[in-house]
Amino acid sequence: VSPRQPHARDLLIGVDRSESGSVSRQLEEQLRQAIRSGALPAGSSLPSTRVLAEDIGVSRGVVTRAYTQLAFEGYLLLRKGAIPTVRTSSQLDRKREAKPKNGDAASRIRYDLRAHLPEVASFPRKAWLRSVRDSLARARHTDLSYGDAAGLWELRVEVANYLVRARGVSAEPEQVVITGGSTHSLALIGRVLARRGKTQMAFENPSHYILHGVAESAGQEIVSSPVDDEGIRTDLIGEAQSVVVSPAHQFPSGVALSPIRRELLLTWARDTGGLIIEDDYDAEFRYDRAPIGALQGLDPEHVVYIGSTGKTLVPALRLGWAVLPESVIEDFTLELFSTMLHVSGMDQLAFADFLRRGEFDRHLRQMRAIYRDRRDLLVTELANLLPGLRISGIAAGLHVVLEMPSCEIAESVCTRARSRGVAVETISQHTLPKYNGRAGIILGYGSLSMPALQSAIEEFARTVADVMQEATEDPAAVAGVP
Amino acid sequence: VSPRQPHARDLLIGVDRSESGSVSRQLEEQLRQAIRSGALPAGSSLPSTRVLAEDIGVSRGVVTRAYTQLAFEGYLLLRKGAIPTVRTSSQLDRKREAKPKNGDAASRIRYDLRAHLPEVASFPRKAWLRSVRDSLARARHTDLSYGDAAGLWELRVEVANYLVRARGVSAEPEQVVITGGSTHSLALIGRVLARRGKTQMAFENPSHYILHGVAESAGQEIVSSPVDDEGIRTDLIGEAQSVVVSPAHQFPSGVALSPIRRELLLTWARDTGGLIIEDDYDAEFRYDRAPIGALQGLDPEHVVYIGSTGKTLVPALRLGWAVLPESVIEDFTLELFSTMLHVSGMDQLAFADFLRRGEFDRHLRQMRAIYRDRRDLLVTELANLLPGLRISGIAAGLHVVLEMPSCEIAESVCTRARSRGVAVETISQHTLPKYNGRAGIILGYGSLSMPALQSAIEEFARTVADVMQEATEDPAAVAGVP
Repeated sequence: VSPRQPHARDLLIGVDRSESGSVSRQLEEQLRQAIRSGALPAGSSLPSTRVLAEDIGVSRGVVTRAYTQLAFEGYLLLRKGAIPTVRTSSQLDRKREAKPKNGDAASRIRYDLRAHLPEVASFPRKAWLRSVRDSLARARHTDLSYGDAAGLWELRVEVANYLVRARGVSAEPEQVVITGGSTHSLALIGRVLARRGKTQMAFENPSHYILHGVAESAGQEIVSSPVDDEGIRTDLIGEAQSVVVSPAHQFPSGVALSPIRRELLLTWARDTGGLIIEDDYDAEFRYDRAPIGALQGLDPEHVVYIGSTGKTLVPALRLGWAVLPESVIEDFTLELFSTMLHVSGMDQLAFADFLRRGEFDRHLRQMRAIYRDRRDLLVTELANLLPGLRISGIAAGLHVVLEMPSCEIAESVCTRARSRGVAVETISQHTLPKYNGRAGIILGYGSLSMPALQSAIEEFARTVADVMQEATEDPAAVAGVP
Repeated sequence: VSPRQPHARDLLIGVDRSESGSVSRQLEEQLRQAIRSGALPAGSSLPSTRVLAEDIGVSRGVVTRAYTQLAFEGYLLLRKGAIPTVRTSSQLDRKREAKPKNGDAASRIRYDLRAHLPEVASFPRKAWLRSVRDSLARARHTDLSYGDAAGLWELRVEVANYLVRARGVSAEPEQVVITGGSTHSLALIGRVLARRGKTQMAFENPSHYILHGVAESAGQEIVSSPVDDEGIRTDLIGEAQSVVVSPAHQFPSGVALSPIRRELLLTWARDTGGLIIEDDYDAEFRYDRAPIGALQGLDPEHVVYIGSTGKTLVPALRLGWAVLPESVIEDFTLELFSTMLHVSGMDQLAFADFLRRGEFDRHLRQMRAIYRDRRDLLVTELANLLPGLRISGIAAGLHVVLEMPSCEIAESVCTRARSRGVAVETISQHTLPKYNGRAGIILGYGSLSMPALQSAIEEFARTVADVMQEATEDPAAVAGVP
């Protein structure tokens, strides 16, 4: 044996026959770990297959299999007659410990009251895993290949079933297309309409700013239509050929579209041939009554219904759906196909199973109780601590609006709260030009546990009181409050 | 008890206490199944909670829990004092049995020799499931929330590690962005360049037609640059500001970019400030030697490297990556963020674990052996059965090219083969204007087992022989051969 050639004991390698998994795999994993951790640096020698096999009492073939796998992975250099050496630099793996650059900024938020965050701690990991396991076991080989651009058929059926019974949507599975979420659905509709020369898309003012960017990026020009206490002003949609609305729970104002406006909106669509895009982002969460059925159910030929699992199940699952009128289905699917941005087949298989078992409904039901308690706490505490300010928005969804005397004060509160570790958003962040509605702060209660929410509210209320006090003492300084 | 109220035995409902899962869940599942199957049609009555609880010997609370869940799901109508009734129509669920419309057309293909299809039967479901299970168990709550648009940090580290050791790519995790696949990566780069006013993108002629559509859809104009036996003609890229190439194994011609051309291409990029987009779609599969390292490794500042798991693992996993030069990273990530088209967090977590365990490498190694055998069979049999025709392309990837005397004959063979249940593609389907290279048929051997491949080759060879015979007898009729 050459003096340069180490032995198993030098490498702290051994095998345990009582463990599950083959001896060859154990060896391979130990060596890979040693190389990745830097214990075996690049250029270092390994025992020959013969020596290592003798050292740990296994057949030479066992060592050869492990070495070959590691050579194939690029960790080892094997040449006939030469001693095996480590090829990669151990530095590579140290990066795993590194944190992304923005980690620091995010960690300065102590309480996150931004409106888009649902509770992720309650994601039913066990039930989800069961759906992954069972759906994967049942999947046909073709389910794992390039699928239909419109989505897995079984999932389209389950989503149609769910939307019909839970949301009053009128949906045949053929009309349901699986997408990467609501913004993806909106981008696709925007592109379909733009190709038809219909490039004016009306939005509620205010409405989520992310949607405005997505629509513009899809070739649409934004038309602004104000929201009042009954929802969107249907008489002010103007020349737009489409309009994006959130009838069940307008974001961010929190109002529901009144029955009269629902009718007026449908009349607008029928009279002008316009398309209504119904963003049903959190309608499952209604606390004072049963959720209002989707607008789409009243006139499926004039409404595109879009929804997703982002707020209702978990954001990490990038999965949503669009229910389309006959006139749009083909172009929409073609757009999906030509961009090749399909949704994970694994997730589609699992979610179809998850829906079929009633797990989605069960989760929604549990979350509804949790969110209702949080909303009650928030509303009660704000009324106690800030009795002079009005809370608006129906008892639904994941946020309320605390009205403010002016946009300047709202912005000041937002900035000051952030500096104290409380992240909130303002209505102003979501307005389009010519906004003349109420000023307010959006408070999301989705992601904080009851004790954390209690502390967050107290910290936030102190901030509001401080800013309002300063504004009273020196109105001119408010805009500049840090 | 009212005569209208049925009993448990009428509904064939019972509970088994030896089974796992709560009694309430069993009851719920049996009732849901009965409603969905139509056994309990809409409008039919159920026993009251008291009656059913007595019938099956459980507490009333157990029945109430099951009923409430089903009411929440929209299956049951519960009103105080009234008998519970079934609400939904059973018709809904029958659709699950229905097949999508194009099912018939697809089933007429007996042998699928199209080039983009990898083997899905060998997808390691067990190892994948282990990665899903373990990564989900380990995941932090924040991993399940809205993540970094650029992808899960742990996965970016693992992908960087993999590409460095297996493909000779120069990659820090900060440069790696996770996308929905190669076409998604290309769409994003196309949009970034278009926003900078760089709207001329050169493509190899021939190259995959899907990529052309994606680039155009991203605002790029296609410039065609011919391919010869050494790969792309770098002197004919013209005024384009970017060029898409597949240096390791050009699609569809099957040639590798020669060392001289590699150097010339990099010189073009340095001289003009142009961007090379390296599509490394199947480079891991090389059968005659170790895979050639990526072009990107030679000049990371001028090359965007894109890859995916579509050919190498399984198409259903819509997951890929781009390794970006410093000059592109920010805009690319911004484009991803503004379209909100992120990749499934579930898949990212699982794939990071899968890579870390060496399962991806193990799978590639197994597939390499399988594909090598299939390629050998295809090449040997074609040489036997069609001795007059040349097979071109290096020993790599998932396809070979069978050269044809003319594009017309190639098209006729393709059409005729399809009518006999054998799906193949032609080079012509992937050409850009002004193509003057070889005519040929692309034969993909990725998805067929050895016996199926043997039969497919025989059927295909007979078709070629028939068409060539007819062409000799009546050259004018070839274009019209059905």
